[in-house]
Amino acid sequence: MLLVVGSVALDSVETPFGAREEVLGGSATYFSAAASLLTPVSVVGVVGEDFPLAQLEFLRARGVSLEGLERVRGKTFRWKGRYGFDLNTAQTLDTQLNVFADFEPKLDERAQKADRVFLGNIDPVLQMRVLDQVQRPKLVCADTMNFWIEGKRDALLRLLPRIDVLLVNDAEARQLAGEANIVKAAAAIEQMGPRAVCIKRGEYGAFLISGKEAFYAPAFPLAAVADPTGAGDTFAGGFLGLLDRLGKDDLRDLRQAVVMGCTIASFTVEAFSLDRLRDLTLAEVRARYQRFRELTEFENLHASIA
Amino acid sequence: MLLVVGSVALDSVETPFGAREEVLGGSATYFSAAASLLTPVSVVGVVGEDFPLAQLEFLRARGVSLEGLERVRGKTFRWKGRYGFDLNTAQTLDTQLNVFADFEPKLDERAQKADRVFLGNIDPVLQMRVLDQVQRPKLVCADTMNFWIEGKRDALLRLLPRIDVLLVNDAEARQLAGEANIVKAAAAIEQMGPRAVCIKRGEYGAFLISGKEAFYAPAFPLAAVADPTGAGDTFAGGFLGLLDRLGKDDLRDLRQAVVMGCTIASFTVEAFSLDRLRDLTLAEVRARYQRFRELTEFENLHASIA
Repeated sequence: MLLVVGSVALDSVETPFGAREEVLGGSATYFSAAASLLTPVSVVGVVGEDFPLAQLEFLRARGVSLEGLERVRGKTFRWKGRYGFDLNTAQTLDTQLNVFADFEPKLDERAQKADRVFLGNIDPVLQMRVLDQVQRPKLVCADTMNFWIEGKRDALLRLLPRIDVLLVNDAEARQLAGEANIVKAAAAIEQMGPRAVCIKRGEYGAFLISGKEAFYAPAFPLAAVADPTGAGDTFAGGFLGLLDRLGKDDLRDLRQAVVMGCTIASFTVEAFSLDRLRDLTLAEVRARYQRFRELTEFENLHASIA
Repeated sequence: MLLVVGSVALDSVETPFGAREEVLGGSATYFSAAASLLTPVSVVGVVGEDFPLAQLEFLRARGVSLEGLERVRGKTFRWKGRYGFDLNTAQTLDTQLNVFADFEPKLDERAQKADRVFLGNIDPVLQMRVLDQVQRPKLVCADTMNFWIEGKRDALLRLLPRIDVLLVNDAEARQLAGEANIVKAAAAIEQMGPRAVCIKRGEYGAFLISGKEAFYAPAFPLAAVADPTGAGDTFAGGFLGLLDRLGKDDLRDLRQAVVMGCTIASFTVEAFSLDRLRDLTLAEVRARYQRFRELTEFENLHASIA
């Protein structure tokens, strides 16, 4: 079983292709929508009294356990952002932590027995508190961001030795390592603990580096992207969802997991919020996964060339 | 035989890893250094009296014909640029056209019989004049840039129907097509004439799109990049060099050509100017080409997943 801790949020998003107010969002929401296509998922998080729980019914129907999603007095976490034509970078207009400010994650017995854990992009102190409660995780992956790399660096550095794969974007990897070259940055991050670093690159795909091994997957070419929100978290959901389903995580598995991450993320961005994920089927996912092969396939050089 | 028209220049370059003054550069120089590893190349271009012709000896030794490189009164084309830690974008500090300002390309009999032509990034009016002199080219590829897309749009639009593959970066493709989405932009450019568009993406690799087919190759992961100058032109050199060597250009060949372009470009950026290209061997190129396979290889999903 796969455990995720992260935000369950109400997002207000504006892109060149439309806008939505107070729609379903949050890292744990996106993650579990993706991962639950592949494996059972438990969510740890918190929402306020104002949260429209009915909107999570589709997750429950897909086998997501929401037992660990506390509902407390106060308002739900809110994020407001805008994207320009460069869909790789969001401009955050407003963040209201609300009930997340006092969040004290408590794992029930089932969650404590999770095999694999995704620590969504929250305070590394909270990420650690969640991890402390998991008895024997086989694989732990985490996301983080500039805010924590700068403001909670010590807590993050204490967490990293307990992480197997860190999932970040180029800028975050560079900032964490203090190194502009991304190959060197990944190597420096491996020295901090993780055995692999997965660099999420938006429309340029994803890059996994582990020791001397490197693997690239492109982003699936889409003629229309509505809203990139959640791409990174659904990438993580596909990545960990496949690894939990496979029950193993050697480098061959990690490569497949990267492609699965890119596959599900490519559906996410086709619509606002979780609209494309609600009815997404594993058969659709599988069909697109297979199209990734055509995207990178090429022949060997003829023997005469050398 | 492969013909290239472009600049033969003296570059002054500064990157975070060093600086060089008045070193060998220019699109035709970089292109022919790359392509000549694979096939015979003829250069059409112009230099001034101040140009150190001895520096091109290594090209001649590699079978590059410099018969079409005029030497005229005046000073050689000069470019001065700087890169920050974001090595994807050069800041141009100075451009002196010098003898290039009055360049009137004249092809000798041999050049007129070229099978394949690369029109380097120069005024589309000059690109057309070169092309007009080639009797029966089997494949024509061209590069261009924001300056011509804006200032010589009509000339460029007249040229495009005679181009097979346009090689540009993301921003240039978007500007030419007036379309932010790169898949739509490539489709719009195909409507202007070329049967394929190859998007050069610096550290993110390259993307070829032709009708419904798409192909991605990553950039080779390098722990040290000294100077990205010439990466695009050596990409083009590897691309066309391989196609000329193969003597065909269906989509399977174009895929191989993209990988060959990425391969040779990855050597270019390891050192300043053409320093890494001078002694580069086809055996080294072949070995690295084969490593591209490992970078993108992944397994099919197990049949149980769907």
